[in-house]
Amino acid sequence: MAGFDILVLNGPNLGYIGKRQPEIYGSQGMDQVPALVRELMGEKAGDVRLSFFQTNSEGGLIDRLEQAWNHGVHGIVFNAGAYTHTSLALADCLAWITIPCVEVHLSNIWARTDEPLRQRSYIGSRCVGVVAGFGLLSYALAVQSLWRLLSDKQTI
Amino acid sequence: MAGFDILVLNGPNLGYIGKRQPEIYGSQGMDQVPALVRELMGEKAGDVRLSFFQTNSEGGLIDRLEQAWNHGVHGIVFNAGAYTHTSLALADCLAWITIPCVEVHLSNIWARTDEPLRQRSYIGSRCVGVVAGFGLLSYALAVQSLWRLLSDKQTI
Amino acid sequence: MAGFDILVLNGPNLGYIGKRQPEIYGSQGMDQVPALVRELMGEKAGDVRLSFFQTNSEGGLIDRLEQAWNHGVHGIVFNAGAYTHTSLALADCLAWITIPCVEVHLSNIWARTDEPLRQRSYIGSRCVGVVAGFGLLSYALAVQSLWRLLSDKQTI
Amino acid sequence: MAGFDILVLNGPNLGYIGKRQPEIYGSQGMDQVPALVRELMGEKAGDVRLSFFQTNSEGGLIDRLEQAWNHGVHGIVFNAGAYTHTSLALADCLAWITIPCVEVHLSNIWARTDEPLRQRSYIGSRCVGVVAGFGLLSYALAVQSLWRLLSDKQTI
Amino acid sequence: MAGFDILVLNGPNLGYIGKRQPEIYGSQGMDQVPALVRELMGEKAGDVRLSFFQTNSEGGLIDRLEQAWNHGVHGIVFNAGAYTHTSLALADCLAWITIPCVEVHLSNIWARTDEPLRQRSYIGSRCVGVVAGFGLLSYALAVQSLWRLLSDKQTI
Amino acid sequence: MAGFDILVLNGPNLGYIGKRQPEIYGSQGMDQVPALVRELMGEKAGDVRLSFFQTNSEGGLIDRLEQAWNHGVHGIVFNAGAYTHTSLALADCLAWITIPCVEVHLSNIWARTDEPLRQRSYIGSRCVGVVAGFGLLSYALAVQSLWRLLSDKQTI
Amino acid sequence: MAGFDILVLNGPNLGYIGKRQPEIYGSQGMDQVPALVRELMGEKAGDVRLSFFQTNSEGGLIDRLEQAWNHGVHGIVFNAGAYTHTSLALADCLAWITIPCVEVHLSNIWARTDEPLRQRSYIGSRCVGVVAGFGLLSYALAVQSLWRLLSDKQTI
Amino acid sequence: MAGFDILVLNGPNLGYIGKRQPEIYGSQGMDQVPALVRELMGEKAGDVRLSFFQTNSEGGLIDRLEQAWNHGVHGIVFNAGAYTHTSLALADCLAWITIPCVEVHLSNIWARTDEPLRQRSYIGSRCVGVVAGFGLLSYALAVQSLWRLLSDKQTI
Amino acid sequence: MAGFDILVLNGPNLGYIGKRQPEIYGSQGMDQVPALVRELMGEKAGDVRLSFFQTNSEGGLIDRLEQAWNHGVHGIVFNAGAYTHTSLALADCLAWITIPCVEVHLSNIWARTDEPLRQRSYIGSRCVGVVAGFGLLSYALAVQSLWRLLSDKQTI
Amino acid sequence: MAGFDILVLNGPNLGYIGKRQPEIYGSQGMDQVPALVRELMGEKAGDVRLSFFQTNSEGGLIDRLEQAWNHGVHGIVFNAGAYTHTSLALADCLAWITIPCVEVHLSNIWARTDEPLRQRSYIGSRCVGVVAGFGLLSYALAVQSLWRLLSDKQTI
Amino acid sequence: MAGFDILVLNGPNLGYIGKRQPEIYGSQGMDQVPALVRELMGEKAGDVRLSFFQTNSEGGLIDRLEQAWNHGVHGIVFNAGAYTHTSLALADCLAWITIPCVEVHLSNIWARTDEPLRQRSYIGSRCVGVVAGFGLLSYALAVQSLWRLLSDKQTI
Amino acid sequence: MAGFDILVLNGPNLGYIGKRQPEIYGSQGMDQVPALVRELMGEKAGDVRLSFFQTNSEGGLIDRLEQAWNHGVHGIVFNAGAYTHTSLALADCLAWITIPCVEVHLSNIWARTDEPLRQRSYIGSRCVGVVAGFGLLSYALAVQSLWRLLSDKQTI
Repeated sequence: MAGFDILVLNGPNLGYIGKRQPEIYGSQGMDQVPALVRELMGEKAGDVRLSFFQTNSEGGLIDRLEQAWNHGVHGIVFNAGAYTHTSLALADCLAWITIPCVEVHLSNIWARTDEPLRQRSYIGSRCVGVVAGFGLLSYALAVQSLWRLLSDKQTI
Repeated sequence: MAGFDILVLNGPNLGYIGKRQPEIYGSQGMDQVPALVRELMGEKAGDVRLSFFQTNSEGGLIDRLEQAWNHGVHGIVFNAGAYTHTSLALADCLAWITIPCVEVHLSNIWARTDEPLRQRSYIGSRCVGVVAGFGLLSYALAVQSLWRLLSDKQTI
Repeated sequence: MAGFDILVLNGPNLGYIGKRQPEIYGSQGMDQVPALVRELMGEKAGDVRLSFFQTNSEGGLIDRLEQAWNHGVHGIVFNAGAYTHTSLALADCLAWITIPCVEVHLSNIWARTDEPLRQRSYIGSRCVGVVAGFGLLSYALAVQSLWRLLSDKQTI
Repeated sequence: MAGFDILVLNGPNLGYIGKRQPEIYGSQGMDQVPALVRELMGEKAGDVRLSFFQTNSEGGLIDRLEQAWNHGVHGIVFNAGAYTHTSLALADCLAWITIPCVEVHLSNIWARTDEPLRQRSYIGSRCVGVVAGFGLLSYALAVQSLWRLLSDKQTI
Repeated sequence: MAGFDILVLNGPNLGYIGKRQPEIYGSQGMDQVPALVRELMGEKAGDVRLSFFQTNSEGGLIDRLEQAWNHGVHGIVFNAGAYTHTSLALADCLAWITIPCVEVHLSNIWARTDEPLRQRSYIGSRCVGVVAGFGLLSYALAVQSLWRLLSDKQTI
Repeated sequence: MAGFDILVLNGPNLGYIGKRQPEIYGSQGMDQVPALVRELMGEKAGDVRLSFFQTNSEGGLIDRLEQAWNHGVHGIVFNAGAYTHTSLALADCLAWITIPCVEVHLSNIWARTDEPLRQRSYIGSRCVGVVAGFGLLSYALAVQSLWRLLSDKQTI
Repeated sequence: MAGFDILVLNGPNLGYIGKRQPEIYGSQGMDQVPALVRELMGEKAGDVRLSFFQTNSEGGLIDRLEQAWNHGVHGIVFNAGAYTHTSLALADCLAWITIPCVEVHLSNIWARTDEPLRQRSYIGSRCVGVVAGFGLLSYALAVQSLWRLLSDKQTI
Repeated sequence: MAGFDILVLNGPNLGYIGKRQPEIYGSQGMDQVPALVRELMGEKAGDVRLSFFQTNSEGGLIDRLEQAWNHGVHGIVFNAGAYTHTSLALADCLAWITIPCVEVHLSNIWARTDEPLRQRSYIGSRCVGVVAGFGLLSYALAVQSLWRLLSDKQTI
Repeated sequence: MAGFDILVLNGPNLGYIGKRQPEIYGSQGMDQVPALVRELMGEKAGDVRLSFFQTNSEGGLIDRLEQAWNHGVHGIVFNAGAYTHTSLALADCLAWITIPCVEVHLSNIWARTDEPLRQRSYIGSRCVGVVAGFGLLSYALAVQSLWRLLSDKQTI
Repeated sequence: MAGFDILVLNGPNLGYIGKRQPEIYGSQGMDQVPALVRELMGEKAGDVRLSFFQTNSEGGLIDRLEQAWNHGVHGIVFNAGAYTHTSLALADCLAWITIPCVEVHLSNIWARTDEPLRQRSYIGSRCVGVVAGFGLLSYALAVQSLWRLLSDKQTI
Repeated sequence: MAGFDILVLNGPNLGYIGKRQPEIYGSQGMDQVPALVRELMGEKAGDVRLSFFQTNSEGGLIDRLEQAWNHGVHGIVFNAGAYTHTSLALADCLAWITIPCVEVHLSNIWARTDEPLRQRSYIGSRCVGVVAGFGLLSYALAVQSLWRLLSDKQTI
Repeated sequence: MAGFDILVLNGPNLGYIGKRQPEIYGSQGMDQVPALVRELMGEKAGDVRLSFFQTNSEGGLIDRLEQAWNHGVHGIVFNAGAYTHTSLALADCLAWITIPCVEVHLSNIWARTDEPLRQRSYIGSRCVGVVAGFGLLSYALAVQSLWRLLSDKQTI
């Protein structure tokens, strides 16, 4: 089947995006991402099939990544929330499933200089790239860049 | 005049992109960025006027950022090369000119776990967002996201 | 409905309190807390409705805190066990649900100087107060102090 | 003589509580503590005899603790102010006088993540427990918990 | 009933051993362990009853350890994967259940000098011993050593 | 000649095992190791020829490792005592002689959390595996695992 | 009453300035400061009323600062000696009395690179400015700058 | 020629003082410094000849300091901006030209406790003194103190 | 007057030696020191005139050292208690009074490996020597060594 | 053309060698290097063509290295002065131009134990070798060793 | 046989005391120690039998300590030279032989603040006491204090 | 006797140079050094008399350095292998024998950024210079530079 399967994976405290702290993260939720993707990619948006998953559980995220590996998913857009900075287990999982993954964040985590721990990303060390700071648009830009990466590989 | 002036600013060792280490950074240079922007943004690409500048000098980058401030540039796409990790002076400059700036990198610098120093970004602490790991496409994605950011502000 | 809903939340290794290591933690379990609250607060104890929850899962604790937010719980008494020292995700959750939370510990964790890590509390940085070192009484004191805090707010 | 003698000891910058920075610490001073104790403990409040002492001097605090040891004081409620984080000498004193001591703070010092030094408590490592974050109520809760601790010992 | 119940417990990213990264970990899975035990121990293998459990969840591992405590399991062979280096909660659990536990790893984690974090083992601080670097054989050696340890205790 | 030559090498303070601190290390000495090997390996024990060497001298240990390299020894079981944590020179030697080496310890050194230095193993970074915590049995398990490793290589 | 009350406060080991180590600090003492102020400020010197206080006691310095707050002192020139680097309690006091304070030192403490601790100033974090390195003139320059600061405020 | 030549040297991001961030640094620029000097020093101001230089370039600052050395400048007032904290090369230059230099800052950099790096001054370790926190007045106070220092030397 | 004046100076928590924690420090107090000195030195003991002083106050210790300097005391035996590890001000005082000082401790502070802070001695960096670990005898040995040091100087 | 082009590159504060601090660096300047090379290499000196460049600018050094790369220079002798310890950008440049480079220093920088920062060399991590401590002779030895290295390559 | 056998053990670089660096360590060697002991102890000196040993070898020092253990030596006076700061193996040896040991140094090592490493003593953590800073007299004072310690034990 | 005696001293793991790891260190051994010296120095090579010594023992290296001091050796070329980074005792020895010493390494140790410990050289802090990265030629360059250094001293 033509096109690419892309898993949009969200970690802890990201289940209420659009509802919690709208002054920081805006009032739009993950269900706006497909429209943003269409807006960015136009007709090319038809090449990507998005599936969404969120859980607060570190183990549950690993379970879902393993499932993606079993199902032959082509790419992953991953916002691991606070596990970005603490989960070696998630980094290990990305290392062995070897599905191209783009790390995303709603805000620019590197601008939070008050908490040095938040400047360390275990997830990032196993990703092809990073997009951070553009709210929900970060996800759409990540989908777009994954699509390009996967298309380039395919045509070679 | 409608549209946005965006400065694409490159720091040390980025003057030979497309020529040096093509096995890492590819053989295409900065002159490919406008085409990539058009490819990503379609007709909306007409809304952004790009200017390019590269210098190996830390002070020269500050000079150019001050000039951008004087000229009323609307947004900045900035790859500060190794100064990303060492230049407090550049971070100070971004702090006071307050022009929206997106930090870009050709490769995913957070995946270089062998040199911890490269995980610290002075530049990033003063940027609205980060795009890293997609080669020259990083620049185009940054332009695209800046355009969205600036458009949103304008219509409010 | 008058009075306050208070969630008493326990994290990992706290499901067997009263059964495990009685020489350290005593032989009484969480089911003694309501009696201790009545003993401390007298007739005022009728103002607080306590619900109890324990899980060993970091994600499960976040799920329960989100549920508390959905249900309009007024205050939280939280013993996060070892997650106190390692879970940035739990701290993030407390930050956004903004329900007043009191951190409790059975023993005085700051007296455990042999393990420096145990002197760092991620949970505490998002709590209104801390009560530690009084065994099960710590929970009752925390309930009492939350009741005062919530009563003060209500009367203003 | 039945009942317990409890020393409420305050360190540097705590002599003007109720007068300085009322926006942070409230406008009530230490003279409100007895009333708070009565409010919390009811008729049991008659079991505790409180004495109050404040000095800005580290050595003066040690002098007072030694006097308490000489006089057979039963318990101590101690807010060491900034000496909490810098005075090894006070911790040594608490170690040898072996009178049960509860560390109190008006605000939750562990929430002050901007000054890492304030997360280290020398005093706490020698105390039976900690109560922090409830303003003057912290003192009353500490008295109440000491009374329970001392009562339990007495009846055994 | 004579003999010993031994739980072989595996943590995150160990559910696909034998399938993932065979160039590093070999193509044999956990189901080969009983045969390796028989090979090492000969007829003595009949003295040990092995049960196997794997989960990616930190909380789930604690749940399973608590169950082992409830069921009177005699020994544990534990590969906590990346939680080895990050889970204080698992170490706390091993501390209170006090069932003899041997830490195992497929590869020699101390040889991974590129990631200093991987040289710290929270799990190990609560184990009687460590066996690492021998692939699946590590598990069999751990079973064998537990059997000796338990036999020695029994005969005394 | 069929079979394998294995050097059992002991470093500082290990010359009096069985005599010093019997309450920690037991009263059996290195001369019990061959019997333990026979007990573990049965008739396979005939495949390994053990030689033993102990010295308190860091340089003497390197001399002996160089001799092993000259003599074509097949495997090494090495307890470097305190040099485990301080000798870069021994690690360098293991790196160039490239004889498979298993690090052993009588007790579980990772459980000694009171001395962080003892958690760093220079030796281990150059070994194929580690066995620690089983007293003299650690040596026998190491011999057994080396025999399997060497046998596997031989048959390929 | 017109003009400003300025307290010149000296901490430990500053009671013998002009007598001790004249090769480093010169042979003139604090009693020369008024003349230096007159020399610098000319007739404007009449606007400032100086009072001097020295004590070796950390608590005594806090006592004196509290007294200044009670008496409505307008500005403080403070050389805290070694307490500059160790006294969190003094920094807390400056924070709450909110009287403008200038940190002074006889020598340039930042040039003492041999003792890193001396590069950290707790006092400085609560001062409006710093003057260091000019011997007794540092005090006069500090008085002069306070006078300007206070004059500016008054005329607004 | 009688009197002293003093170079007022400014580093990165100091070219727009009086224009950028007036809420922090005020709206007056470097051209106000001579008037402030006259105000402070009165007729003595005639003894000092000021020259001003600003550049964003680290190398350019060294060039200018070398020129000052060649021209026999008597004193330097130096605000190195962010290079204060990062430029070992500038510190080396001050060390060898051995012209008395006073470090100045518009704001009190030691009060910026949020960025520890800003508490380290390479420049200061090679200066006779420091004046910080008084806006443009810092420069005038530095000129005044240099004049005193140079006058004292001359008369000896 | 022939002979030497020696000040025996004790800091915080040393006022109750002989009374507090006799299981650690023995039941003899400072008043036993003269007898120990006579026992060690025999008739030479007549050469030294001892005076004793104890205070819990850091500032009070500095006051007493300054007095010693004023009175021409020949040598100091100093046990600074916990100030040994925290007081830069006391170290500064010893530096300028330049009276030979011997640091003493009742127990061997370097054997307290559980508190790394106690291994740093500010006092020691300004002393001619150290005697620790011999209880009250430490004082007598220090007096004896000072007497030798002073005698050697005198006869030259 | 036979022989080798070698660039002798000097960084900040090295433009006045032979003039500044002659007591440390001697009174001979860079113009003595060719004679030293001839002295060391004899007639072989004709094989190397030296060009010299010095600048205080970090960017200017990168510019010159890029020019060398464009011109096909065969080897580089590089004294980066203080940039040795701070310039990641120069290290990056050496990494990509891949011209053999020898790091030189006039003095032995590793003997300056008072400034730990000076023990870290970014430049060195990208050089084939280091020669330090021999004054101007360091340069000549570096030229000689580069000539041997280049000659060896050529003849293979 | 009455009296005590005391081993005076010297480590690296102590074989030439009295010959090397006489300006620091004096021109008297270890052979003066017996006379100093007689001078200090008078007729009591007959109670101690001293034997002396020096080696530059870490392993050789351990060999000698083991021999002392075999021979029933009563006390040890130990100057481990630089091994004081680096040898965990020597500390381990002192820990198991459990012969009372006094650490000695010719100079006061804690006054060498330029090399922080020299403030850490592995040896000291296993000694009963420390005497440092009195040249060869340090040894005699250590012998004297050991004699007292051993005598006290004997008479009990 | 005219000319200079130079000791070429090699530490641990350097006894098999030319035999071990020839892919890294080449297949030529120390016996090639004299020829390289003659090649570099021509007829001047007759001025230097080389003696060679290698041992794996830290103490043995100190013994040999002491012997060199006794014999009046004029200069030392020293490759301390891994002891470079761990031996404070060797550094102490170089400090007191005060024979000019040049530190050499076969490879450029500062390029081994993966092991930070290898960037610290205790040996180097006591040497006149360093030559590293040129294989056996490093030794010859070091001999040549020592000869120049010694010749310069002689003619003065």
